[in-house]
Amino acid sequence: MCRWLAYSGSPIPMDALLYKPKHSLIDQSQHAEMGAETTNGDGFGIGWYPIDRVAKQTPGAFRGIGPAWSNANLRDLSEHIRSPLFFAHVRASSGTAVQESNCHPFRHGDWLWMHNGSIRDFARLKRDLLLAVDPELYPEIQGTTDSEAMFFLALTYGLRDDPVTAVERMAGFVEATAAAHGVQDPLQMTVATTEGETTWAFRYSSTGQSRTLFYSTGVDDLRQLHPEVDALRMLSDDARLVVSEPLGAMPDAFNEVPESSYSVIHRGQDQMSAFNPR
Amino acid sequence: MCRWLAYSGSPIPMDALLYKPKHSLIDQSQHAEMGAETTNGDGFGIGWYPIDRVAKQTPGAFRGIGPAWSNANLRDLSEHIRSPLFFAHVRASSGTAVQESNCHPFRHGDWLWMHNGSIRDFARLKRDLLLAVDPELYPEIQGTTDSEAMFFLALTYGLRDDPVTAVERMAGFVEATAAAHGVQDPLQMTVATTEGETTWAFRYSSTGQSRTLFYSTGVDDLRQLHPEVDALRMLSDDARLVVSEPLGAMPDAFNEVPESSYSVIHRGQDQMSAFNPR
Amino acid sequence: MCRWLAYSGSPIPMDALLYKPKHSLIDQSQHAEMGAETTNGDGFGIGWYPIDRVAKQTPGAFRGIGPAWSNANLRDLSEHIRSPLFFAHVRASSGTAVQESNCHPFRHGDWLWMHNGSIRDFARLKRDLLLAVDPELYPEIQGTTDSEAMFFLALTYGLRDDPVTAVERMAGFVEATAAAHGVQDPLQMTVATTEGETTWAFRYSSTGQSRTLFYSTGVDDLRQLHPEVDALRMLSDDARLVVSEPLGAMPDAFNEVPESSYSVIHRGQDQMSAFNPR
Amino acid sequence: MCRWLAYSGSPIPMDALLYKPKHSLIDQSQHAEMGAETTNGDGFGIGWYPIDRVAKQTPGAFRGIGPAWSNANLRDLSEHIRSPLFFAHVRASSGTAVQESNCHPFRHGDWLWMHNGSIRDFARLKRDLLLAVDPELYPEIQGTTDSEAMFFLALTYGLRDDPVTAVERMAGFVEATAAAHGVQDPLQMTVATTEGETTWAFRYSSTGQSRTLFYSTGVDDLRQLHPEVDALRMLSDDARLVVSEPLGAMPDAFNEVPESSYSVIHRGQDQMSAFNPR
Repeated sequence: MCRWLAYSGSPIPMDALLYKPKHSLIDQSQHAEMGAETTNGDGFGIGWYPIDRVAKQTPGAFRGIGPAWSNANLRDLSEHIRSPLFFAHVRASSGTAVQESNCHPFRHGDWLWMHNGSIRDFARLKRDLLLAVDPELYPEIQGTTDSEAMFFLALTYGLRDDPVTAVERMAGFVEATAAAHGVQDPLQMTVATTEGETTWAFRYSSTGQSRTLFYSTGVDDLRQLHPEVDALRMLSDDARLVVSEPLGAMPDAFNEVPESSYSVIHRGQDQMSAFNPR
Repeated sequence: MCRWLAYSGSPIPMDALLYKPKHSLIDQSQHAEMGAETTNGDGFGIGWYPIDRVAKQTPGAFRGIGPAWSNANLRDLSEHIRSPLFFAHVRASSGTAVQESNCHPFRHGDWLWMHNGSIRDFARLKRDLLLAVDPELYPEIQGTTDSEAMFFLALTYGLRDDPVTAVERMAGFVEATAAAHGVQDPLQMTVATTEGETTWAFRYSSTGQSRTLFYSTGVDDLRQLHPEVDALRMLSDDARLVVSEPLGAMPDAFNEVPESSYSVIHRGQDQMSAFNPR
Repeated sequence: MCRWLAYSGSPIPMDALLYKPKHSLIDQSQHAEMGAETTNGDGFGIGWYPIDRVAKQTPGAFRGIGPAWSNANLRDLSEHIRSPLFFAHVRASSGTAVQESNCHPFRHGDWLWMHNGSIRDFARLKRDLLLAVDPELYPEIQGTTDSEAMFFLALTYGLRDDPVTAVERMAGFVEATAAAHGVQDPLQMTVATTEGETTWAFRYSSTGQSRTLFYSTGVDDLRQLHPEVDALRMLSDDARLVVSEPLGAMPDAFNEVPESSYSVIHRGQDQMSAFNPR
Repeated sequence: MCRWLAYSGSPIPMDALLYKPKHSLIDQSQHAEMGAETTNGDGFGIGWYPIDRVAKQTPGAFRGIGPAWSNANLRDLSEHIRSPLFFAHVRASSGTAVQESNCHPFRHGDWLWMHNGSIRDFARLKRDLLLAVDPELYPEIQGTTDSEAMFFLALTYGLRDDPVTAVERMAGFVEATAAAHGVQDPLQMTVATTEGETTWAFRYSSTGQSRTLFYSTGVDDLRQLHPEVDALRMLSDDARLVVSEPLGAMPDAFNEVPESSYSVIHRGQDQMSAFNPR
């Protein structure tokens, strides 16, 4: 299990969401409340698009293998880097090695990808799943996780052209491969992906009991409800946040993403639709 | 807060106590039950005396800065090293840096030292405490923790000649120094120390509400009560274990060390006495 | 021995100087030419002032304990962070532990400090040197190096008010303390320090045979001499660089800082003066 | 490029060969003389068979991602662990990530494997090479290196039953796969492998210009030639050492393994034969 956060809106220093809120993502790395595991201490990562991004420049990334809660570099970087769109992830390994190449968000060109969940019996399915990855893309797989395999399958199925269809085909392929091996209910996922402009967030599981996922309500409403919260003041009206579990002191700030659905977030607009593996 | 374990008896592979019991020390690194903190993921260490120890040879040591629960080297080493006397420690930092030089057990010559607890307002007291360390010993301080400062104070006060008096003088000096700075109830400690033959375990706090400490009851009795526990079979009758919280499935295997007392364990004999800071 | 680099001028991505030049600082981490040691693989660090720095905001910092040449995070961060003033350092330990708290640049408030060189017999002198640190500053010492001790002595002697005098007094105190312990020729240093606007660079050793130090000649002249060098195009006319050994393909780009002298660099102006320990 | 060492003979503490000789393996990690790269600072590993090994017990292993020369744990473990048969390896990455799962020696059951060299254009060939790995073994691949792929191919071709044939088939398959992709002269290798009783050491390259490999001459002769060398006294007459480049002060202690050949070492006997990829 893992916890993650995806932000888009006015540029803010990343610590405004990673550290400052009550029950922030870094707090969740030590004391999650909604996940299968309370501790997410098996590595972490951030990926961000620079304020002054040059066209097609890759997003920045920083990953580490210790717990997020004690990492002095993570704290310092998140205080000093402002970004209009960033991902952050804290990891609880489901068995694969704790190493930077297994830390989310994964990156390919200008795309980021992060995942909470797992593929059941991944060790048994891995060879067949990786065989389906485009041979041109195959050499760029860096780590050994199910999450990265899902990313490269989605890239193979056209993530860069039609993200929703690509993720639906990936999910369908994982389920078909699992069925061929006699593995029941293989897929459990909340996934976020972006190319720097639009964020897609997916909630799905083969059993229909997916890990939690929440999206923020409008900042304008929140500011009226919580004039005492500093972090809200620096957010633009179009700021949007998607999270594994709500941050802090504002339970009314977050709505649950429904089971088997996905959300597309672009310049403060978000649209929810049903997710159907193909 | 931290969790620790001190074993002496017949040589056993360290994983017999670190990994195999239910609620083992490594389990406690992720899910402690009795401590101030449930997670002890800020580094770890083991110190052991080799089976074929040459006279005055230092004990072996292995320390790491990530969580114990995901450390492949720790698991492997503890499976492959057998020892008749070893210490193991999992750390939850009370603020000082997560680095190997701050991981317990600390070592000086043939002595080991480990600690659970803290000195309140250590940053304010540190200079005065370190000034009292013997200038000959001072250059050998490697890290920045209160725990190592306590070790070097105890060495200064004669740990190698009269361990109990040295620890009592250390505790008294810490309390006197704190009083001079207006710091109330400064000391909270369970400490274990050894030279490879005898283990001393101390439980004390300025408030009289010390962190928990337990010692194992006789192995012979246990074997009769729990014929189903494999680990017991490899233990000799003189095996003794001191722990921050009981391992696993045998609640009757452990007795609590009383408040403000210490235990001396030597070749299967243990003796309990009152602890009085001087 | 270590290698370091201090840049000020128009904001540039840090990799323009850390990675892109021939014989860049990262190359020097693996194959230095002028130092006492060819390999500087015992940790590294960068410190930078953000483009959009808020008044008195601390500089950003990132430190790591492995070699710089293989660190994926360092490469990525230096590509994605632009700064008008930054320090970078690669370390070869002279004996103290390889841990982040011993990596340069050191930081205190809005000041940065980095050092190449050593204090001879530091272990013997350390206690007396640290005793001279202002007790208010003492608790903020994080690591165990001679370099950080020099920084805190300079802070004690007024670095923030009169940097040159403070460094001269620090050097004088180190030499006097060494003399009292019978240690000959104790100090070897090139040091850079800054508060974000002005950079001071010092070259001094007790023996008068200091580690090398170079400063860049005018960017305008260089651009005419080397129209083929891309990196020069992004530099403003007031860009200044101070380095342990010249970067790459432009031997005419660097002048040696004379023995026992210091340089003050502010908005493209630099001024050289004699350095005299007090 | 990497450096490695394989020892068999009377049980000795590993530091007797890793640290104590002049130009020891750890010295070579910082200053190799014969390799393509002078610095081998991209991780390290040791694998050893315990003195009191239980039947079929796996060998112990310890791996790390920093340089060997500054690793306090490696120094301490090698002082405290005695073994009759151990492998040690220092790594210079040829491009794959610096992470523990890429550090040698690799282990499978009771077998160890380590490698110096590379497969040219491995990224392009990787998919086809891994496809040839036995699907039962495939899930146990932990890292991303060419060296580990070679190990799993050799296991697939029967390493455990007929090591020489298996390694010859592996080499032949790598060369055939490379030819199919238009990659010239793909294989460069010195390899050591063992099951704890016998050590096989291979020297081969597609070009016929393989990395250096040496084996020790008889200990008895050496003792007469070098009565001043302490380490020799603790060695039994049947001790044998295979190394990437000779240790230290005894040039007459080592003979070069000829091009395209392999050596089988068992209880002090060694036998050299020609190596022919199949």
